Amino acid sequence: MEKVWNSWGDEAKQRPLPEVAKTVLTSLLGPGNPLGEATLEQTASQLPPSRLGSHDLYCVEPGVRARYARGQSLADWLAFKQGKLGCAPDAVAFPESRDQLEALLNLAREHNWVVIPYGGGTSVAGHINPREGERPVITLSMERMNRLLHLDPISQLARFEAGVRGPDLEAQLNARGYTLGHFPQSFEYSTLGGWIASRSSGQQSLRYGRIEQLFAGGLVHTPRGEISLPALPASAAGPDWREVILGSEGRIGIISEAEMRVQPLPQKEQFYVSFFPGWQQGLEAVRAIAQAGIPASMMRLSHPTETNTQLQLALSQEKHRRLVKLFRLLGVGDSPAMLTWGVTGDRGQVRHSTRAIRRLLHSHDGRLALKGLGQHWKQNRYGAPYLRQSLWEHGYLVDTFETAANWDRIEALQQQMELSLKAVAGDTPLLSYTHLSHVYKQGCSLYTTYLFPAKEGFDASLAQWRKFKDAASRAVVEGGGTISHQHGVGEDHRPYLSVEKDALTRSGIQAVLEHYDPQGQMNPGKLLETP
Amino acid sequence: MEKVWNSWGDEAKQRPLPEVAKTVLTSLLGPGNPLGEATLEQTASQLPPSRLGSHDLYCVEPGVRARYARGQSLADWLAFKQGKLGCAPDAVAFPESRDQLEALLNLAREHNWVVIPYGGGTSVAGHINPREGERPVITLSMERMNRLLHLDPISQLARFEAGVRGPDLEAQLNARGYTLGHFPQSFEYSTLGGWIASRSSGQQSLRYGRIEQLFAGGLVHTPRGEISLPALPASAAGPDWREVILGSEGRIGIISEAEMRVQPLPQKEQFYVSFFPGWQQGLEAVRAIAQAGIPASMMRLSHPTETNTQLQLALSQEKHRRLVKLFRLLGVGDSPAMLTWGVTGDRGQVRHSTRAIRRLLHSHDGRLALKGLGQHWKQNRYGAPYLRQSLWEHGYLVDTFETAANWDRIEALQQQMELSLKAVAGDTPLLSYTHLSHVYKQGCSLYTTYLFPAKEGFDASLAQWRKFKDAASRAVVEGGGTISHQHGVGEDHRPYLSVEKDALTRSGIQAVLEHYDPQGQMNPGKLLETP
Repeated sequence: MEKVWNSWGDEAKQRPLPEVAKTVLTSLLGPGNPLGEATLEQTASQLPPSRLGSHDLYCVEPGVRARYARGQSLADWLAFKQGKLGCAPDAVAFPESRDQLEALLNLAREHNWVVIPYGGGTSVAGHINPREGERPVITLSMERMNRLLHLDPISQLARFEAGVRGPDLEAQLNARGYTLGHFPQSFEYSTLGGWIASRSSGQQSLRYGRIEQLFAGGLVHTPRGEISLPALPASAAGPDWREVILGSEGRIGIISEAEMRVQPLPQKEQFYVSFFPGWQQGLEAVRAIAQAGIPASMMRLSHPTETNTQLQLALSQEKHRRLVKLFRLLGVGDSPAMLTWGVTGDRGQVRHSTRAIRRLLHSHDGRLALKGLGQHWKQNRYGAPYLRQSLWEHGYLVDTFETAANWDRIEALQQQMELSLKAVAGDTPLLSYTHLSHVYKQGCSLYTTYLFPAKEGFDASLAQWRKFKDAASRAVVEGGGTISHQHGVGEDHRPYLSVEKDALTRSGIQAVLEHYDPQGQMNPGKLLETP
Repeated sequence: MEKVWNSWGDEAKQRPLPEVAKTVLTSLLGPGNPLGEATLEQTASQLPPSRLGSHDLYCVEPGVRARYARGQSLADWLAFKQGKLGCAPDAVAFPESRDQLEALLNLAREHNWVVIPYGGGTSVAGHINPREGERPVITLSMERMNRLLHLDPISQLARFEAGVRGPDLEAQLNARGYTLGHFPQSFEYSTLGGWIASRSSGQQSLRYGRIEQLFAGGLVHTPRGEISLPALPASAAGPDWREVILGSEGRIGIISEAEMRVQPLPQKEQFYVSFFPGWQQGLEAVRAIAQAGIPASMMRLSHPTETNTQLQLALSQEKHRRLVKLFRLLGVGDSPAMLTWGVTGDRGQVRHSTRAIRRLLHSHDGRLALKGLGQHWKQNRYGAPYLRQSLWEHGYLVDTFETAANWDRIEALQQQMELSLKAVAGDTPLLSYTHLSHVYKQGCSLYTTYLFPAKEGFDASLAQWRKFKDAASRAVVEGGGTISHQHGVGEDHRPYLSVEKDALTRSGIQAVLEHYDPQGQMNPGKLLETP
């Protein structure tokens, strides 16, 4: 797949905005304001010259440096689109083996370069963006280290090189009858090492667990040497150091290999869509299923605003009209909350779970269980990020943010999150909507999408985004949520981390970072400010 | 309950060795060698005088210092019984509030005392034993901080003071319709804080999770101040610092409060006992159930040696004879592997799981599902440690050790573990047997019990134990197991930790310990050697 250099995903998968969407957007947000788009050549030509000479092990070509300069946050996107990267790595390397990785890290240590580990470049929190500074910066892209090294079918462990992307990882496992089951929305481009370093969570985490539950052990190359974490089923032998590597965001070292808990491909998998008369009934139902421990493989509950927006975009007008009519007949009404849910397992488990879930949904006024819409969700499960390009072309910007909180906070938090955006929108038209997913017995995640017309030019658009991002982040942490359930901290969430991680927790993490990276070379400023 | 000062458990619960056990033991191990037993007064009188003056906040009375000087390892037991404690804390404190705890820690910091956090004193790895040294030692027993502070039924979280013991914790929850579900064998005496600090696992971890999954957040008092860990359902915001507190064994600070994930009391719970013709069939069946994700609440598979020993001890001769006859009829034979298993949940879940488990057991040649023996297991689930006293009175010593490993290692590891004991037994008669429990998709734990007649006196008995302990610990780590699945590291497992935690992992943990405890006051020498 040829990835578009300044946008999400593969060239061939880009899709135009449906006519109905244009109508909806214009009515809600007014006309868009298409901004210009710089070419790769224009963008690359504006980069400061590399401070590193040419070398067999890395590349200093401006076009490559530009491509690897940013991730996929809206700020990154604007910078790519407008050719305003500001700074870029001085070199990009593509190690093909642990030896090459070590050689690169030795060079960096010797010359005191900054090292940025790069997985799939899908970060939406500024994880892989170089900062201005006196030291040369080298970005290490792990994409060529992507092999399955070992599969143990007895203990259900698979050891991979950590640069492997989602589809390659699953293809290698599927060919042997296994799956990891980690399907974040970024699945097509993000990598195993990136998932671990940023504590990723997949859409079916309810069945397969978060990356924390899947990562059994592996190798981390730090400036002080290699940490080897054994893959044990469980241990009481002191602090769990995997849990320090998980979420370390490149600050400790680079993950070169990871041993993952895999399982046989399921016999059967099915997705359904059901509807509730309102958000509250849906919340109660989802919590009841999670707390009863009924093994759904995913649940995603859309707030009525998201429900109506998504149904309008997914269905023809005729089908939509018929569904609305059906809603009235069934007592679902005009503000339906849509629940997408899945069951996965062997035939008996799927049958038993489906029955148990439907019973519980019904007792909470949930109606219907549509396979067609479930199938639609499945087919489009990685599609949302492509919308950004289609919207961009029509002059609209879109961003998302997410959190997780305890059940007792969810209802208020969802409101606070959306209100926080409105409070700083000023005269900028705004559309926002929210869903919950990744349910736990204790709580769930919330995920909010918001759209607004681009402002006049790069600076004004970026400034408006910063207002939204700051307001939303404050609302999240003040409302009792984590600053990130699945995107990590990076640069963008760091200012809000202190609510969740107090001064003594942060100083403890800092002590670990300084221990492994005494020169402060590894991805400085991400996660915690470098002192 | 009045705990016996130099033995396991409550005075009233001590139970004599059944006649049949005496016969079995004499035939297998020869006659026992009862050693004398010192009184508390004799033991206390041999302690060096306290180096601390009397104080409102702590007690320097020798009898109290003696009681709190040791845990429950076999070495501790011998020291208690023979009145040879060697050293003891200079004072024992019983803080009743966070303020008193802080005041005590401030005193300790000011005067550079060593601080030993004490939960229930049930450690079998030397966690709470003071070491000889120049600094005075104060043991902080958390037993008076035992209240339920808050219960949130929506998010299913309960906040407790961390000194609460198992039965008090469950009683406070049960009264409100909830349970934590953490039932280690030490349940009656061990505390919430101790479970967290040593990464405990309960007998029904298959349903409720290990303490790692139950501990959502809390407060840790370190020499640098208080760490507050928020109780979030999940987070991608950097390393998970709970996982550093978990297993920190008092080296970072004292856990004063913990917010725990609780759940409503189950509608139904049932335990069964089934039998396989051999260990291998049992292993295959247990692995199949675990990897299929069938929700059993516990599985414990006894090796044929353990099976036969336990049946002889549990049943009358008549009942045992009938069971053996039944085994022949059913094709189970003379070397049965006994599986104790449980199902817990609502009625529908229990019915569905029971059916699924029985089907799988049967397809692996598993026979019977006896409720009576299941009930017997339930009634005696915390009883095994009491046996040590009964055996002691007849001149036999008993110890256990445990590990966890991946499924591909289990069969070889079980053999190596038992052979390692035989290799150092010399002319000491030895009986050993093993079960597996705490099953995971990736592997399981192994738990070996061994008995031998006491040697001539304290020193010879201790020396023989050290040989067994060292040989077993080596066999465990060389065979690919963790040095502890549920008992922790403490003093006794520290020499074997390096196989699992490499030099760079240990130095990283050391950096954390030094950060929070710059004077090295907190439980020095446990987990890692203090530099």
